Amino acid sequence: MKNDQLMNLLNQMTLNEKVGQLVQLATPFFKGASDRGQITGPMQEMGIKEEDIRNTGSVLGASGANEIINIQKTHMEENRLGIPLLIMSDIVHGFKTIFPVPLAIGCSWDLPLAEKSAALAAKEAAVSGVHVSFSPMVDLSRDPRWGRVMESTGEDTYLNSKFARSLVRGFQGKLASDSYKVASCVKHFAAYGAAEGGRDYNTVDMSEWMLRESYLPAYKAALDEGCEMVMTAFNILNGLPSTGNKKLMRDLLREEWNFDGVLISDWGAVKELIPHGVAEDEKEAARKTIEAGVDIEMMTTCYTNHLSELIEEGTIKEEMLDEAVLRILKLKNKLGLFENPYRHASEEKENEFILSAEHRSTARELAGKSMVLLKNESVLPLKKDEKIALIGPFAASKDILGPWSWGGSDADTITFEEGIKTKIQQEQVLISEGCGIESGSQQQLNEALEKAKQAEVIVLGLGEHSDMSGEAGSRSNIKLPEVQLELLKEIKSLGKPVVTVLFNGRPLDLTDVIKHADAVLEAWYPGTEGGHALADILFGDVNPSAKLSMSFPYSVGQVPVYYNNYNTGRPKDAPDAQIRFVSQYLDAPNEALFPFGYGLSYTTYHYSDLSLSQTTLTPEDHLKVSVKVTNTGDTAGEEIVQLYIRDLVGDVVRPLKELKDFAKIKLQPGKSSLVEFTISEEQLRYYHGDLTYESDAGKFEVFAGPDSKNLQSQIFELKK
Amino acid sequence: MKNDQLMNLLNQMTLNEKVGQLVQLATPFFKGASDRGQITGPMQEMGIKEEDIRNTGSVLGASGANEIINIQKTHMEENRLGIPLLIMSDIVHGFKTIFPVPLAIGCSWDLPLAEKSAALAAKEAAVSGVHVSFSPMVDLSRDPRWGRVMESTGEDTYLNSKFARSLVRGFQGKLASDSYKVASCVKHFAAYGAAEGGRDYNTVDMSEWMLRESYLPAYKAALDEGCEMVMTAFNILNGLPSTGNKKLMRDLLREEWNFDGVLISDWGAVKELIPHGVAEDEKEAARKTIEAGVDIEMMTTCYTNHLSELIEEGTIKEEMLDEAVLRILKLKNKLGLFENPYRHASEEKENEFILSAEHRSTARELAGKSMVLLKNESVLPLKKDEKIALIGPFAASKDILGPWSWGGSDADTITFEEGIKTKIQQEQVLISEGCGIESGSQQQLNEALEKAKQAEVIVLGLGEHSDMSGEAGSRSNIKLPEVQLELLKEIKSLGKPVVTVLFNGRPLDLTDVIKHADAVLEAWYPGTEGGHALADILFGDVNPSAKLSMSFPYSVGQVPVYYNNYNTGRPKDAPDAQIRFVSQYLDAPNEALFPFGYGLSYTTYHYSDLSLSQTTLTPEDHLKVSVKVTNTGDTAGEEIVQLYIRDLVGDVVRPLKELKDFAKIKLQPGKSSLVEFTISEEQLRYYHGDLTYESDAGKFEVFAGPDSKNLQSQIFELKK
Repeated sequence: MKNDQLMNLLNQMTLNEKVGQLVQLATPFFKGASDRGQITGPMQEMGIKEEDIRNTGSVLGASGANEIINIQKTHMEENRLGIPLLIMSDIVHGFKTIFPVPLAIGCSWDLPLAEKSAALAAKEAAVSGVHVSFSPMVDLSRDPRWGRVMESTGEDTYLNSKFARSLVRGFQGKLASDSYKVASCVKHFAAYGAAEGGRDYNTVDMSEWMLRESYLPAYKAALDEGCEMVMTAFNILNGLPSTGNKKLMRDLLREEWNFDGVLISDWGAVKELIPHGVAEDEKEAARKTIEAGVDIEMMTTCYTNHLSELIEEGTIKEEMLDEAVLRILKLKNKLGLFENPYRHASEEKENEFILSAEHRSTARELAGKSMVLLKNESVLPLKKDEKIALIGPFAASKDILGPWSWGGSDADTITFEEGIKTKIQQEQVLISEGCGIESGSQQQLNEALEKAKQAEVIVLGLGEHSDMSGEAGSRSNIKLPEVQLELLKEIKSLGKPVVTVLFNGRPLDLTDVIKHADAVLEAWYPGTEGGHALADILFGDVNPSAKLSMSFPYSVGQVPVYYNNYNTGRPKDAPDAQIRFVSQYLDAPNEALFPFGYGLSYTTYHYSDLSLSQTTLTPEDHLKVSVKVTNTGDTAGEEIVQLYIRDLVGDVVRPLKELKDFAKIKLQPGKSSLVEFTISEEQLRYYHGDLTYESDAGKFEVFAGPDSKNLQSQIFELKK
Repeated sequence: MKNDQLMNLLNQMTLNEKVGQLVQLATPFFKGASDRGQITGPMQEMGIKEEDIRNTGSVLGASGANEIINIQKTHMEENRLGIPLLIMSDIVHGFKTIFPVPLAIGCSWDLPLAEKSAALAAKEAAVSGVHVSFSPMVDLSRDPRWGRVMESTGEDTYLNSKFARSLVRGFQGKLASDSYKVASCVKHFAAYGAAEGGRDYNTVDMSEWMLRESYLPAYKAALDEGCEMVMTAFNILNGLPSTGNKKLMRDLLREEWNFDGVLISDWGAVKELIPHGVAEDEKEAARKTIEAGVDIEMMTTCYTNHLSELIEEGTIKEEMLDEAVLRILKLKNKLGLFENPYRHASEEKENEFILSAEHRSTARELAGKSMVLLKNESVLPLKKDEKIALIGPFAASKDILGPWSWGGSDADTITFEEGIKTKIQQEQVLISEGCGIESGSQQQLNEALEKAKQAEVIVLGLGEHSDMSGEAGSRSNIKLPEVQLELLKEIKSLGKPVVTVLFNGRPLDLTDVIKHADAVLEAWYPGTEGGHALADILFGDVNPSAKLSMSFPYSVGQVPVYYNNYNTGRPKDAPDAQIRFVSQYLDAPNEALFPFGYGLSYTTYHYSDLSLSQTTLTPEDHLKVSVKVTNTGDTAGEEIVQLYIRDLVGDVVRPLKELKDFAKIKLQPGKSSLVEFTISEEQLRYYHGDLTYESDAGKFEVFAGPDSKNLQSQIFELKK
């Protein structure tokens, strides 16, 4: 449809029809949905009439070509102007083929593979009839208590921004011309990940400086990549709910960033202005939200029931509504829905693409690249001729897809046990649960100990069940449940080598685990192909290469712990530091147990010869940083080489180090590679006290190394 | 001295003499100090010459009339223009007579007594030769990990502001005319108490809205009371060290608030601009600090060594220096130092006032009013005819003065044991340490158990030694040390009544303590008269009346927990709340174990008949709230009746409740009192999103009750 046709369509629409476009309801509200019968009660409660459904603009959570075709077909017949529905869905880390959780993907530092995972998810979703994916989620978080850290790629602004772009590219490609793409909706705008106390939906408060410096860049990166939609956040930001925050959305997102795509509320977030206490009723919530710039209201009916009234009484101008409707119509048009409302929905293609060998092998590869080896006292890789006891609540569990994997199914999931048994003889593997996730019996324990005694090496599958993280999955205690720590200690007391494999969606306090296990592998929730990927790693068919994209604290009492903190005026590690009067805990280190960027391999790497092409830089030229990396072990491997920079003196405080670049390299045993990075003045810019974004002349320290702690450095000077 | 004489003096001063007035050094730098010999090395390191000492304007930490008179005498002889030294000192909760720590004083809610404690401290300090007290400290903190919470009066903006005014009044009185007063220096400007992770000196970041709403009012209250001085903070605030923060000091403190008193850096904080990374060297630190508005540099020499140069080269205008010098000269003049440089310093008066019976009895009274009874299963008060085992590391410890009590001495301190033994026969009390603070032996434990077996009731004195809180006393674990919890459990297993008395400077995680003790008394660090006050309380001669001014969390994983939080969009306790998708921890409550305002008595109170004089309020009138409080027990008592308000709909989110007023009442058994509060429109103002400070028409809920959780409420409406 051409632009003037869209305008023409808009001009034909009644007020109610326009408002309808701004409404999003879940699948069961629509005729043709498989479970429609259940919805009569909720419709009445929400004051929704059948007419409203006919006018509705978009659908949430529909799934499967057959159902979506049915819904769309009925809708096209009943909608007066034949405006197709937009079908949106949460495709966070895979649709039916589930990839590792995003935090795990973050640990792969593998941007092309992350992009591919999004592209395959888009493909599966597109043929199932979905048009928009509510992802990527790019909320920076420094608090492992927050359940949704599993949905982000980690604690670093730069790395998150890179992943944001890759994932948007993977989902969207060239949306209007590429096949099997879906529109991407970046979320949650803004700063949702800074929930106070790590408690989901809780207060967020920060300076505009901090917001721009650390929290906003990843949303901006997604938009720079052409991301079509933005979702609001549940949290307040500096006193105002994000969803009713005009400064955040009209002023920053629309005006300053020129975002002209569709802005959607999170589930129920418009009506939540009432419990937040900034709207007296649904009508005021509707007014504040539309004024703030939100186009679509998800799952509540403040717009449905009050927007027309607000316009008729003159409180809201109809132009404001028209702009919102037009943005939605434009997106529908870009997706080609006016020409083909069913788009790629096809049962045939579903059968062809979903869980295809290519999709599974990509999931397996990405899972392997996202598992972080945290400790290894010469136990891993396992020998294929040994007898193994595979023990723990995750030994044979299907609960390894993680939160936000509603499209995945247990039947398609390769468990830890199944993976292991593809590598060695069935008789070599003894399986026992040992305990449940949060409770266990003496009998379970005894049985596990019996099995363990018969084995040469014991592999424990421990962790959190997937409801222990994810949305509303905040925890005040980030240790493994006591019963599992007991199991580990009991098993360890047998004196045999113990490998602990962890399944979880957040950084945990692993102090006890590290003490009692000879090797620890952080497997996260590895997805559909998790069992295969684990077997690949444990038997050395794949050499671990992942590096943490979020710090693991010693304890929850240290939180927040993140690598790019500031020096303070009394740094603990200064040469002239006092014993007492420095910034420290009396009873714990300041640093993480496992820092950002950390991860072991079955081989070892030596870093040397860090050198700069020049010691001064001007805005007009570039500076090359090179570091030699040598594989000093006897296994081929992949290494993530990291580049950090510190601005030694700033207008405001600067982080002790900031990731500025990285490279993934493959190295055969004994071989070396000279890894080269380029630094330009642009990378040295930051937000000053007056919120200008620029660099300062002066000295910078540039670091390279295998993680954020073990680094070599050189000094250069920026001259302006 | 008249103002024109001061100007005349200023005009006679050389550049170096002016700069000297802006320098503060510790006592040993000065001739006449008792320990001067030690200082040669530091002077050389700092580049300080004897001439600089002669020009120096103020002294830090001097103590005792004799020494101070000696220092001042020498100085008056050697200073060319005969400008006296200002003598400053940390008089935080008493000088020689040590009162309970400020957090404990906060729990008394006793403003007149707090004022008296400051007045007595000022009296002792003044006769010892001190002119300025570095107090009150009014940093709001919501994080018990932070060691300096013991220095604040708690987590509430309103209560802190009230105490700020009382303490300033106590110290200063009418400074120029009252006897035995010292100038008050409010600290630390600003928001030092919001150190990230509760780690001292760490990053502080918050919106200007939050800063104005919660953190600034207590500083402002101190200044409204006429507080003569302000001290900067160590922390950065939104990227800039407070000490070099022009926006905070020139723009807000000087311009907006019209503060024309002396602004002093905290110890070494000027030079700390270098490790903070916003100054390359001392010269830049000096420039940024003087530009930001700091008059006196404490204990580093950026001003001494670089201010003249900055002025001579034209970077800094001499007028800026002159303004700072004049502020200092004015304060000296206000203190009468030009007429009498020794002021109240007098060995005779020291002997008369210090630790006098009046001072001791006030310390005893305040300590008794600050101890919070947290649990009491009919064990307290103790009977005077029973045999008591007094066990634990605090049973006979002198370490009950708490941090910031350098003027206090062990010899003058009444221990727990000594206090108890004034009430009952020596033979009735069996004493045993049981364990140390952080470690213990089996022998100690056995001995304690032996003693316990011989007693009818066991009183345990447990806690943290005073270095575990205070400046740089941050902890990641806020439970009692394990060895003390073990002692408690072992003692409890004897099956006898166990009373636990806690000595500590922060809210602790008491979940284990509560489980194993029949009564728990939070004694804080009660000061010089601690033992007497404890005995008064335990034997019922004083009925506990204190209420927590800071929440006690269930665990460190819940932090921050404070009573005046916001509702969120998905409150856990809403009538229609879901099970999962609400703001909560899966494994812990949202609320505190013991909330703000909580504290038990030996009697009980019943609240009833909450009523409003009218249900609407206008800006022109007042509304009366009354509540009937009845002493339903059989002991006379003092009750702190609390009034909270919630603004039901705001321009920005409003706290679930905010303390707006309180009353301390005395009630005989069976008697009732109708407590009346007055509400005016002014109390309903708050910072809007655009930072205007005003009230909104609309509904308000007003609550009254014994703590922040157990409240009755009524609704009224503000009409404008």
